[in-house]
Amino acid sequence: MPKFMDVHRGFVGATAEQLQAAHEADQKIEAEEGVHFERAWLDPESGHVFCLSTAPSAEAVQKVHERAGHPADEVHRVDVEVV
Amino acid sequence: MPKFMDVHRGFVGATAEQLQAAHEADQKIEAEEGVHFERAWLDPESGHVFCLSTAPSAEAVQKVHERAGHPADEVHRVDVEVV
Repeated sequence: MPKFMDVHRGFVGATAEQLQAAHEADQKIEAEEGVHFERAWLDPESGHVFCLSTAPSAEAVQKVHERAGHPADEVHRVDVEVV
Repeated sequence: MPKFMDVHRGFVGATAEQLQAAHEADQKIEAEEGVHFERAWLDPESGHVFCLSTAPSAEAVQKVHERAGHPADEVHRVDVEVV
């Protein structure tokens, strides 16, 4: 299953609780689109959120975020991962 | 130790081997700046690379990338992470 990294902007000053709530809203419906969000990271200063997921397509990732009320600004299919 | 997500643009068409080589170039010198790069992801279509690290500062992350010859376009301190 392909992996995706999506980027949200505009979360300036967001808290850990707010990120957790947004992430849980995604996770509650993700299975309906075949998506799984693995991890998410927030930079509260710049307002960027990065979400790592596995999904059938970028459209599926975006659909979950849209349904949860926080569409992503960018969705990247990250076909290569190194450790 | 704080975590960071940095973003590079311009890797359009890069290969897994090229990402691996860039990542290894970082890892070879990272300890000298107190940085550890955990994982990196490449979207070869848009040319974005995302690197997750632990480091003492954003400047230290950027210093490793600069010394390795591929400065980041953005370095974000991601103080919040959810799973």
